[in-house]
Amino acid sequence: MTAATVLKSENTIAAEMRRVAQAAKAASRPLALADAETKSQALRAAAAAIRAQEKAILEANGKDMAAAEDRSLTAAFKDRLKLTPDRVEAMAAGLEDVADRPDPIGRVQDEWMRPNGLKISRVSVPLGVIGIIYESRPNVTADAGGLCLKSGNAAILRGGSDSLHSSRAIAECLREGLRQAALPEDGVQLVQTRDRAAVGEMLRQHDLIDIIVPRGGRSLIERVMQDSTIPVIAHLEGICHVYVDGAADPKMARDIVLNAKMRRTGICGAAETVLIDRSQAEKQLPAIVDDLVQAACEVRGDAEAQEIDNRVVPATDADWETEYLDAIISVRVVDGVTEAIEHVNRHGTNHTDTIVTNDVETAETFLSGVDSGIVMHNASTQFADGGEFGMGAEIGISTGKLHARGPVGADQLTSYKYVVRGGGQTRP
Amino acid sequence: MTAATVLKSENTIAAEMRRVAQAAKAASRPLALADAETKSQALRAAAAAIRAQEKAILEANGKDMAAAEDRSLTAAFKDRLKLTPDRVEAMAAGLEDVADRPDPIGRVQDEWMRPNGLKISRVSVPLGVIGIIYESRPNVTADAGGLCLKSGNAAILRGGSDSLHSSRAIAECLREGLRQAALPEDGVQLVQTRDRAAVGEMLRQHDLIDIIVPRGGRSLIERVMQDSTIPVIAHLEGICHVYVDGAADPKMARDIVLNAKMRRTGICGAAETVLIDRSQAEKQLPAIVDDLVQAACEVRGDAEAQEIDNRVVPATDADWETEYLDAIISVRVVDGVTEAIEHVNRHGTNHTDTIVTNDVETAETFLSGVDSGIVMHNASTQFADGGEFGMGAEIGISTGKLHARGPVGADQLTSYKYVVRGGGQTRP
Repeated sequence: MTAATVLKSENTIAAEMRRVAQAAKAASRPLALADAETKSQALRAAAAAIRAQEKAILEANGKDMAAAEDRSLTAAFKDRLKLTPDRVEAMAAGLEDVADRPDPIGRVQDEWMRPNGLKISRVSVPLGVIGIIYESRPNVTADAGGLCLKSGNAAILRGGSDSLHSSRAIAECLREGLRQAALPEDGVQLVQTRDRAAVGEMLRQHDLIDIIVPRGGRSLIERVMQDSTIPVIAHLEGICHVYVDGAADPKMARDIVLNAKMRRTGICGAAETVLIDRSQAEKQLPAIVDDLVQAACEVRGDAEAQEIDNRVVPATDADWETEYLDAIISVRVVDGVTEAIEHVNRHGTNHTDTIVTNDVETAETFLSGVDSGIVMHNASTQFADGGEFGMGAEIGISTGKLHARGPVGADQLTSYKYVVRGGGQTRP
Repeated sequence: MTAATVLKSENTIAAEMRRVAQAAKAASRPLALADAETKSQALRAAAAAIRAQEKAILEANGKDMAAAEDRSLTAAFKDRLKLTPDRVEAMAAGLEDVADRPDPIGRVQDEWMRPNGLKISRVSVPLGVIGIIYESRPNVTADAGGLCLKSGNAAILRGGSDSLHSSRAIAECLREGLRQAALPEDGVQLVQTRDRAAVGEMLRQHDLIDIIVPRGGRSLIERVMQDSTIPVIAHLEGICHVYVDGAADPKMARDIVLNAKMRRTGICGAAETVLIDRSQAEKQLPAIVDDLVQAACEVRGDAEAQEIDNRVVPATDADWETEYLDAIISVRVVDGVTEAIEHVNRHGTNHTDTIVTNDVETAETFLSGVDSGIVMHNASTQFADGGEFGMGAEIGISTGKLHARGPVGADQLTSYKYVVRGGGQTRP
């Protein structure tokens, strides 16, 4: 391309993103005012459209898969990209689940009367326009679009470019759902260009987009947080810890460590580090390592852990801050709950951390001292999930402290307004 | 200065801001864990220190005032800067009020049991480290520092450079209060340099500072929002509207317009624009203009308003988006509540807007249709205030939708965590 062509293409993308954001903003007001039944109707119609369009969606996905083959992408990447009839059905069922849940909008969160007779209510309202930036998992198009619709927000979806055909076919079904419920179809828009410049342009529309939710790997999220002029709900990786206290039940500690690491290694709530109290280490660590090694998990550890069990290979400083997302775990011997808390707050990502102990006081020290969105006592970190919390579908787990922390579902994609009802009061 | 000196000075400021942010982070954990009584004790001791140090505070303020005289700053600026014995006492009393209010930390906001026996609680926690950037009003040092302390947050205060002596004397009293309660004195730190580069350095400490609250004029806030890599709670200006509906009580409409504009013109909840329904305009507008003119308020209006009342001078397009903070108001004739809502959402700043009407259905249309943090029915916009809401002292009124909207007091300077208590559950 000549310099002039590049410039023209950049201008085109900027203009296109501006148009998309304006259309979203225009759609956001009718969506914000839509009642619960209308939104549920749109979600059910979208689910029906996904079922009706199964063939077209799978065909579109076939194009994406073929291109992925040509580009020799990894097997894990292709697995995330691939759709099957079961996965298509799961998207449709997911939208129906969202439709069935209580409406998050218009809830009176608090209400009180002032001495002067003013009645003040705090009422949940949509955020407005939400930009979702994600990688090549086509199902996120349905999940994220559905949660935005449920919460009365207009969604701008920017999926990974390798999944464009699939996402386009799915987004069309969501728009069909909106049309059938007489809601503006631009309540869900998919960014149609593969050019990465589109993300940068999206992050500049701070007068039209209210919030950005990035969902993906560390580099994507860090780039978005760096470049965005729009507030971001951060979903950093989960470096989750299990602390086995001196007063832990040995069997429970083994079960929780094994489950927290190995049930599924690829989710953000999987444990990456075990901290074990020195008083318990010699007796307990070999049994814990037994379980892990038997499950084909590599165990890395500090000098003390290596000395106790020679199957433990050396850990470096980097291990304490690595999200393996794989069958690898790091182990460190610590001096009680205080050192455990220090380790977690220093090396963790404020995601999910658990203590195993039968000492209630020690447990409370851990629960209040660890500065994470989710803290647990005698439970596996793998429960860090909106569904497991009973909150329904989620976009992810927020590791930031602002606005939403922990699982981000439809309830968290809301703001509130104060409604003040008077009888002519003026302020003295 | 030579280029080398400038560079050295910049490096020094960067190093100093890093040190301040690190000290705040270190202080934030003990503060987060402090119980309600200890924090109240610190606030009361700070109030006592302010009273004991009245002479020193007024002397420090004398230095700032003398410098302000030399620089020929405006009378309004000097009034905001000036401290008197009454104003010093008001700061001390304000801290005691904050001490007396319920503790915002450790509240169980929600709690439920899952079918697998996991008990989940959502509990309020501090945000961590809060950076407050404000102009030369020394009382903000006490108010903002006190609210951060109450909510268990470490505060980094960056006041206007013209108030540095005054703010330093006040901040010392807050630190004295922390010491007396055996809390870390770096829970409150004042940035000690006048150099504006300090603000830029502060906005870069995103690994140590959790949130930035800018408080001041539009240019300060826009600069902070533009430059900050840390999430910002925005306090934009208040372009507040009174909509006089066709079904308004004429006397109530007059009272509310006059109060909303003229009670105090310099606060963010003061009305800047009156919208009046066409059906009512001819009859009502002259009486409203009577009141305003009699109160020495300039009335600017659209062509229709000018035609109805010749005391109305022409408004330009800029008037609809100007926060006068003065005895000036703009008037526009609109075609019912729909056009009123459109005008407010287009030209307003999502702050506070009110409708005057006896028609409940029209009122509800306005309350749900206007996208502002505070919406009112038959009440003056001047009630937009944390104290008037019964929420206690506030840092300001947030016009953003993320995290906190409307009055931002100690309750809004919090986040939450999920605490999960189990009996050894692992995820199937």
